[in-house]
Amino acid sequence: MIESKVLSKIESIVGSKNFSTTIEDKICYSYDATPLIKQYPEAIVFPTEVEQIAKILQLANEEKFSVVPRGAGTGLSGGSIPVENSIVLVMTRWNKILEIDEANLTMLIEPGVISELIDIEAGKRGLFYPPDPGSIKFCTIGGNVAENAGGLRGLKYGVTKNYVLGLEMVTPTGEIIFSGGKNVKDVAGYNLRDIMIGSEGTLGIFTKILLRLIPRPTNSKTILSFFDSTIQSGEAVSEIISSKIIPSMIEFLDRTTIKCVEEYAHIGLNTNLDALLLIEVDGNGSEVGRDAETIQNICRKHQAVDVITATDENEALRLKSARRTAFSALARVKPTTILEDATVPRSRLPEMLEQIQKIVSEENVLLGNFGHAGDGNLHPTCLTDERDKDEIHKAEKTFDRIFNSAIKLGGTITGEHGTGLSKKKFLEAVVGTAGLEFMKKVKLSWDPNNILNPGKIFTLKPKCEGALPLSRENIKEFSN
Amino acid sequence: MIESKVLSKIESIVGSKNFSTTIEDKICYSYDATPLIKQYPEAIVFPTEVEQIAKILQLANEEKFSVVPRGAGTGLSGGSIPVENSIVLVMTRWNKILEIDEANLTMLIEPGVISELIDIEAGKRGLFYPPDPGSIKFCTIGGNVAENAGGLRGLKYGVTKNYVLGLEMVTPTGEIIFSGGKNVKDVAGYNLRDIMIGSEGTLGIFTKILLRLIPRPTNSKTILSFFDSTIQSGEAVSEIISSKIIPSMIEFLDRTTIKCVEEYAHIGLNTNLDALLLIEVDGNGSEVGRDAETIQNICRKHQAVDVITATDENEALRLKSARRTAFSALARVKPTTILEDATVPRSRLPEMLEQIQKIVSEENVLLGNFGHAGDGNLHPTCLTDERDKDEIHKAEKTFDRIFNSAIKLGGTITGEHGTGLSKKKFLEAVVGTAGLEFMKKVKLSWDPNNILNPGKIFTLKPKCEGALPLSRENIKEFSN
Repeated sequence: MIESKVLSKIESIVGSKNFSTTIEDKICYSYDATPLIKQYPEAIVFPTEVEQIAKILQLANEEKFSVVPRGAGTGLSGGSIPVENSIVLVMTRWNKILEIDEANLTMLIEPGVISELIDIEAGKRGLFYPPDPGSIKFCTIGGNVAENAGGLRGLKYGVTKNYVLGLEMVTPTGEIIFSGGKNVKDVAGYNLRDIMIGSEGTLGIFTKILLRLIPRPTNSKTILSFFDSTIQSGEAVSEIISSKIIPSMIEFLDRTTIKCVEEYAHIGLNTNLDALLLIEVDGNGSEVGRDAETIQNICRKHQAVDVITATDENEALRLKSARRTAFSALARVKPTTILEDATVPRSRLPEMLEQIQKIVSEENVLLGNFGHAGDGNLHPTCLTDERDKDEIHKAEKTFDRIFNSAIKLGGTITGEHGTGLSKKKFLEAVVGTAGLEFMKKVKLSWDPNNILNPGKIFTLKPKCEGALPLSRENIKEFSN
Repeated sequence: MIESKVLSKIESIVGSKNFSTTIEDKICYSYDATPLIKQYPEAIVFPTEVEQIAKILQLANEEKFSVVPRGAGTGLSGGSIPVENSIVLVMTRWNKILEIDEANLTMLIEPGVISELIDIEAGKRGLFYPPDPGSIKFCTIGGNVAENAGGLRGLKYGVTKNYVLGLEMVTPTGEIIFSGGKNVKDVAGYNLRDIMIGSEGTLGIFTKILLRLIPRPTNSKTILSFFDSTIQSGEAVSEIISSKIIPSMIEFLDRTTIKCVEEYAHIGLNTNLDALLLIEVDGNGSEVGRDAETIQNICRKHQAVDVITATDENEALRLKSARRTAFSALARVKPTTILEDATVPRSRLPEMLEQIQKIVSEENVLLGNFGHAGDGNLHPTCLTDERDKDEIHKAEKTFDRIFNSAIKLGGTITGEHGTGLSKKKFLEAVVGTAGLEFMKKVKLSWDPNNILNPGKIFTLKPKCEGALPLSRENIKEFSN
């Protein structure tokens, strides 16, 4: 409980029109896109100046309340869900593109810019911003950087991290730092920028983001391949990678997902098959057509039933919509959709696909599996109902088994969604006891009072957390 | 001074054949490739097992001596020079390639592998490891990772950081951690791997390095352009970048460097001109020839006097040797060669070239300027004599002015060599007071006794440094 005199101090920093304690706002900011976890904040603030953010964090250190930064709230691991004794600090109004520097191929923007707008603006200048997380139409770049968001083009173009050149941020103790810049090479001191990327709002709040743009490829080819067997589709992916071709996209949909997508989007997909691969190659020269042909041959070699190549941009968009609509199509089926992102080294993809099929059949859950096959990054998605405790228990057991399988195959618990609250319990198994300890040392050295987004990624010290250790096993119900 | 009973304990950890206190070894390990700075270690150890390294660091924390890790000692900022009360821990015998995984396009190696061997082994499999620092024939990969080494291909392919997927390391307190892995997407917890890259041996000692390989490009074109004016060559570089072509190499040589290279290597260069650009484009398709043509036209538009395109691989190698021999050619001229790596955003290159010309003429020093023009990463190289205090003083004043100019243009003090000892005094001006403070917090949280390579990058606390604050202004002479 934050005392009312402290709330008044917070209000006086941002001004009353940028401060709220209404029940409507508390409800709106009590959750993100992660199912099953909700918590009320004690206030919501919309700062307008970097100095206001610094002052709020300084006050938080004096008065020992928690600050949970938030963009559009599209996160899938609970990273922006309030904790006890916290205020939510909303950055969506920071939505200006400050500079596009065509000579240095950079874009300086505020953290509340909708991610899709970045590539739209880049595209007008023949430039390209490749990261394209599934929520690209409504997520904000600040959250993309905080979670190191991926997307469909990660295979060839990398993830958000590969496009962040510089960050202005407010530290947990309220100092303003800029790390990085327009220099494409810079090794002066430690790389603070890169430890910030993916730190899930626990080490600082971004106020400006300098992005790298690249020349836009001029040619592309889109291919859709259907397979009788999931395993064979996985083997086709492995052979494409080892044949020294790096497509811009290799996406996988399983039978459940194909069926849901077809019912939702009426693309004309064959719903009687076990797997679909959506593959895109791009570039600037003759290699694009040649690579597309090699890929078609590899798919046929692995018993692809049907291989379709888009003849024009419209058809390519139509084929790609099969993948782009997968999450929405699955989410229609049942009230609660739990989307995960277990990831394995690319060569282990066929084994992982097989494991997931086995687990789903043994646990008898309704699960659609799709994802970035070229990255080994899958999105097994459980279609369930949070009001049914048995269903939820089965879903949780399924994901526990899937994560453990991924770890055994040399994989990880999260390829692009972050650890947040929902995957804390698996982190030590992935990074090791000493690895986890050294992460906590960084947090504690920067945020000695554990003020900024406490309890996310790991539990620092239960005593100084300022929040209950939230998790799916400890669901907090709404209450006034 | 490390007590002899402590030295005996160290000896018993590694065994006597891997331990030395001879004067010959102390001399050999008292310096690296950085001019003007030398210091004796108290012992030199060659550990053979990761557990030995852990034990040495644990003992160092108990007995409070410093540990300075070292590869081939080719560093240019003093990163591997011993400090007072230190032992040097040499990793050059860790020279095995442990695994090449063609399915996942990765290579697992030990830190003492000579960097050149990595791309040679990758090339045998149609794969490519692009980072190519100037010392590639004798430097080791551990040092490349510790300094985040760059090279000639940084423009298109990035630097060492972009190819490190995972690191096994021993922490300053003697724990063994693995961060990263074969997953191309992984956001589980903080990115410890990336803060280790470029940490200059102050945060951990690498024992295994997992590298990313990429498919090898099949086509390339090499172009040499001569210019009457340095500024015009800089403008040609800016126009190439903004024309949406990303060459694999744009290297610059000034008049002094051209002259020294021609005297040394007899390539047939025109020594009466002010600037030379060596440009390489590569890829897999028809865009390579088209881009080469566009680049030639841009060079001619900016008054290039002569534009030569290699007709075959042998001629390309001959042309490239103009750049590859630059450092050796300059180093012959005078007893002491001080090579620096001031870097600016690419668009500021013409201004930076002009500034350097002005400073050199005003300070009346002998300086050859060359470097990675496409990255804005220049290597102004002072040809001097360390026995002449006046000459050294002029050289230092010249570099102070060059670094300050770079910082004013939004640049940095080091693009690829690291801060080490020689650029500590400039760091705060680049990263800011708060930025420097947060770097120190990371160091102190991981290395509370300041055991591992203390005094490099920054001075943590003079009282607990365990070493004199070495710098060019405080040159230690040899003494027994």
